[in-house]
Amino acid sequence: MIGLKTYGCANLIESLKGKKPFFICTTATTATCKIPKISGAGASTDLMVYTPAGDAEIMVFGELLCCDVPPQTISDGFSAPTPAIITKGVIELTNIPFLIANAGLEIKPNVPYISINNEPGGDVRTGNAVNNPEKIFKNAKVIAKEISKSCDYLVIGESIPAGTTTALGVLTALGYDAIFKMSGSRPENPHELKREVVYEGISKSNIKIGNFSSFDAVRTVGDPMIPAVAGMVVGSKMPVILAGGTQMVAVCAFIKKLGIDFDFSRICLGTTTYVVRDKTADLIDLISQVDEIAVNVVDPCFEKSENEGLRNYLKGFVKEGAGAGGAILTALLLGYSIEDIRKKIEEVLERI
Amino acid sequence: MIGLKTYGCANLIESLKGKKPFFICTTATTATCKIPKISGAGASTDLMVYTPAGDAEIMVFGELLCCDVPPQTISDGFSAPTPAIITKGVIELTNIPFLIANAGLEIKPNVPYISINNEPGGDVRTGNAVNNPEKIFKNAKVIAKEISKSCDYLVIGESIPAGTTTALGVLTALGYDAIFKMSGSRPENPHELKREVVYEGISKSNIKIGNFSSFDAVRTVGDPMIPAVAGMVVGSKMPVILAGGTQMVAVCAFIKKLGIDFDFSRICLGTTTYVVRDKTADLIDLISQVDEIAVNVVDPCFEKSENEGLRNYLKGFVKEGAGAGGAILTALLLGYSIEDIRKKIEEVLERI
Repeated sequence: MIGLKTYGCANLIESLKGKKPFFICTTATTATCKIPKISGAGASTDLMVYTPAGDAEIMVFGELLCCDVPPQTISDGFSAPTPAIITKGVIELTNIPFLIANAGLEIKPNVPYISINNEPGGDVRTGNAVNNPEKIFKNAKVIAKEISKSCDYLVIGESIPAGTTTALGVLTALGYDAIFKMSGSRPENPHELKREVVYEGISKSNIKIGNFSSFDAVRTVGDPMIPAVAGMVVGSKMPVILAGGTQMVAVCAFIKKLGIDFDFSRICLGTTTYVVRDKTADLIDLISQVDEIAVNVVDPCFEKSENEGLRNYLKGFVKEGAGAGGAILTALLLGYSIEDIRKKIEEVLERI
Repeated sequence: MIGLKTYGCANLIESLKGKKPFFICTTATTATCKIPKISGAGASTDLMVYTPAGDAEIMVFGELLCCDVPPQTISDGFSAPTPAIITKGVIELTNIPFLIANAGLEIKPNVPYISINNEPGGDVRTGNAVNNPEKIFKNAKVIAKEISKSCDYLVIGESIPAGTTTALGVLTALGYDAIFKMSGSRPENPHELKREVVYEGISKSNIKIGNFSSFDAVRTVGDPMIPAVAGMVVGSKMPVILAGGTQMVAVCAFIKKLGIDFDFSRICLGTTTYVVRDKTADLIDLISQVDEIAVNVVDPCFEKSENEGLRNYLKGFVKEGAGAGGAILTALLLGYSIEDIRKKIEEVLERI
């Protein structure tokens, strides 16, 4: 398909062409996003916790209700719009079923949603990042089990600021070589800061790196999104596209460490070329450390856009989020052209 | 079909045979259920607010988590189990997709659910029964719009104690002749008490009976379930089976009064013979006051059961709730026999 490049086996993605998806965007926040300079997923440090709620409102109702400033990434005087705009464009274009899941939000969106967990995550530096990962996992399994009965595949995205830091926490605790390989939403990737806060959190526990269970890793230095998405993947009766970049590697690693009988060939990643091209990260290496999981990379060619904010994605702004890459992938699978997808995204951006 | 009798046009229900349902049980509570003797939907007045949460836990996980005493109806030393057992039996037998919706619960269940509204209803006597019916309606529309994209029809049940009183409130405010026609969960139907509390609530408003809008009726003397289910009906792209008795008449009346372009031939009621046979109520007359809406009545023949609690349904205990009648109807539409359905219900009751 024009606009798609697959790393790894393309069998799964080929089998999903023309099939019926159900898209779930999993939202959560942690106190980790309040650490200055750690995330770019919001207009300011104070506004980070509003990003998932704002994203949800944009995607469901097409308008921001929880605050005045739209989610965006700002750096050096430039800015780029939240990737929720991309997902919204795809939803409008394709009319696919779409729901928000709350995996633990400090600020609740003014939209209906699937409630998996009501408690936001803590600051990874405390070593008490998530109180109830087992419950989140159990609840998420139920949701995906039920919804997957009525579709051919699930597409699961995420919106959680500082999510690459908490994903780094989980990957590191589980023994992966992930430092300097996680992506980020700003052109400059604060790897040292991410590493520092993750190690501070891990040092608060009595468990050695590599000896953590999946749940202990999340409990200590993770976030609520990871057990939620992992639960949905395990609970789903149908194939799953994990709509995201390096954060979804943490989800795969979480599942791997559970030690359950799980067939990784029924899941794949769907993300944007901006994540894969990110010179400050290494998605393809990270996923290969976990298992043979295909990575489907879409290129919406924002260099062709007249919108400066979208063009800034090429400069390392945003890159991914709110399931944007997987949303574009889903539209491609349904037969829409990458040109039509980009035009719809531009139209939504003009309007919202 | 054996076990089914249709009052009104059978075209819709015939067209749903063998099609793919999605079942949503809509839960809510109001302070109205704390009025002594008003409801039988719980083991005691204090336990009424736990009934929807307990029902949800039974239906989703098959075990009670929120309290120690299972939801049940007790009268004169006899008791009958919650109708959630019936719905659970059908879910296990048919494996249909099933989710709980929270339309406003005081006690939250320990299950994942669709969050439509987080605020329980007040006491109808105050004339301030529901704070935000417009928001509930709007949110519910979104949920049904999305979920109905992935199924052939929706089945929507309810679990809300004292729900016939609040439904009476809405019907009365909208100008219907409903007093002495609402069903109830005990053999003795406290019509005088229901009427009294509804009139007390209506008297607190400045609006005359018959002059209420749908939203004002709910706001004054209704409950959160009514705008939630009405919103789902209006939002759904697919036909809807309203799984309930006289309370669902209030949902239909709410929709009617909205004055929108709505085709009532794409919805119908699905309930139990115990509601229709209820000599203290008149479902068929009530629904005919609203519009031409078919009522599909199932008879699970609990007289054949060895379980005394189920046999007590014939004595006027419980009758309906948690979408039980619609659940049985759905199983019949999927080709299961009424004998197999009853046996599965008995098995679930033994186990839980």
